[in-house]
Amino acid sequence: MRLAELSALSGVPTATIKYYLREGLLPPGERVSATQAEYGEEHVRRLGLVRALIQVGRVPVATARQVLAAVEDDSVDLTTRLGTAVEALPHGPEPTAGAEVLRTAERTASALLERLGWHRAASESAAYGMLVSALTTLLELGYPCDVDRLLPYGELAGDLAVHDIDLIEQFQAPTTRLEAAVALTVLYEPVLLSLRRMAHAEESTRRFTDAAPEAGG
Amino acid sequence: MRLAELSALSGVPTATIKYYLREGLLPPGERVSATQAEYGEEHVRRLGLVRALIQVGRVPVATARQVLAAVEDDSVDLTTRLGTAVEALPHGPEPTAGAEVLRTAERTASALLERLGWHRAASESAAYGMLVSALTTLLELGYPCDVDRLLPYGELAGDLAVHDIDLIEQFQAPTTRLEAAVALTVLYEPVLLSLRRMAHAEESTRRFTDAAPEAGG
Repeated sequence: MRLAELSALSGVPTATIKYYLREGLLPPGERVSATQAEYGEEHVRRLGLVRALIQVGRVPVATARQVLAAVEDDSVDLTTRLGTAVEALPHGPEPTAGAEVLRTAERTASALLERLGWHRAASESAAYGMLVSALTTLLELGYPCDVDRLLPYGELAGDLAVHDIDLIEQFQAPTTRLEAAVALTVLYEPVLLSLRRMAHAEESTRRFTDAAPEAGG
Repeated sequence: MRLAELSALSGVPTATIKYYLREGLLPPGERVSATQAEYGEEHVRRLGLVRALIQVGRVPVATARQVLAAVEDDSVDLTTRLGTAVEALPHGPEPTAGAEVLRTAERTASALLERLGWHRAASESAAYGMLVSALTTLLELGYPCDVDRLLPYGELAGDLAVHDIDLIEQFQAPTTRLEAAVALTVLYEPVLLSLRRMAHAEESTRRFTDAAPEAGG
């Protein structure tokens, strides 16, 4: 298909597609004349991933390029490619806490992974840094964040990961599967956070508003 | 305590505290002289919430003011105050999809709430809008997001909410409880997302890398 069709099919304006091509976020089409190129299914799919990263994940262009490079790097195994891609995603602010709070947060995070039995999750990963950072803020503000209270969140995250990886396993080709893994990592985050907020409203109403009449009935 | 002590105790610079006071994010201290005011425990706690909102939640100052007004409004019941406060939090970009995709996303979201039995979660809430927006992106990119696949995420979010509200119930005074609810809504989001990413690494290694030797053994 031509650029105009790729634009119509993907809903991405031609100017934006040309920008992604220039920035190396989208592989070039197959040249058919001096001024025209032909694009295929893989461009539609890749464009979807670029939009997921940039528009939903708010990932900077340079970071998106790193993520895509990891997705395409077929010199290493799938798990390493996925790990490198997810590692390149933004992980929130660096902790600004004092040394003592930071040490407590690191001890808590490491004890939590131990209790969860997550021996494969590298403690030098960006996600681990994001957890430590979130724990330092909770500690500094005096909110509860000991291992016992964090454990159910870890267990539920483990259940979520099983569903996530089930979804990803539906995609057969290695690169397609990696693209799906990165896109679903980014795109299911707002799904999960919005459902958690709605569940809060539901649970808090059930507990605090419905409770009185139920107790009396 | 004086401003300098409040700053030392909270780790927030005095210039930042003065800015929060000017912006009405922190109630004024009790005047003890023309140039000095006395601050208490509630200032330490409130400062924690303001930092959670602005530094971790990246909430604009005007939005933080709305959230805090809802926390303080004791003319309505706790559930309404919490609902209004969480409603004021940012909920990500508005959907930009075409009318047909938007209708499918809305139908999916509404069917999902029906299946979850969440009759109390208002479909006009900001969190619902955030879900619909995330679903339109998944639909546009051709990723799976039917009710059956979304259901486990909703169920797990429901389990998370039970733990969240358990944490919040530890705080007795109504305003303290609301402050904790808002702070924990914001502060546990990075905890959850980082644990999900680590669980991905764990589950994907278990399934794709460890799988071969296990099958042979």
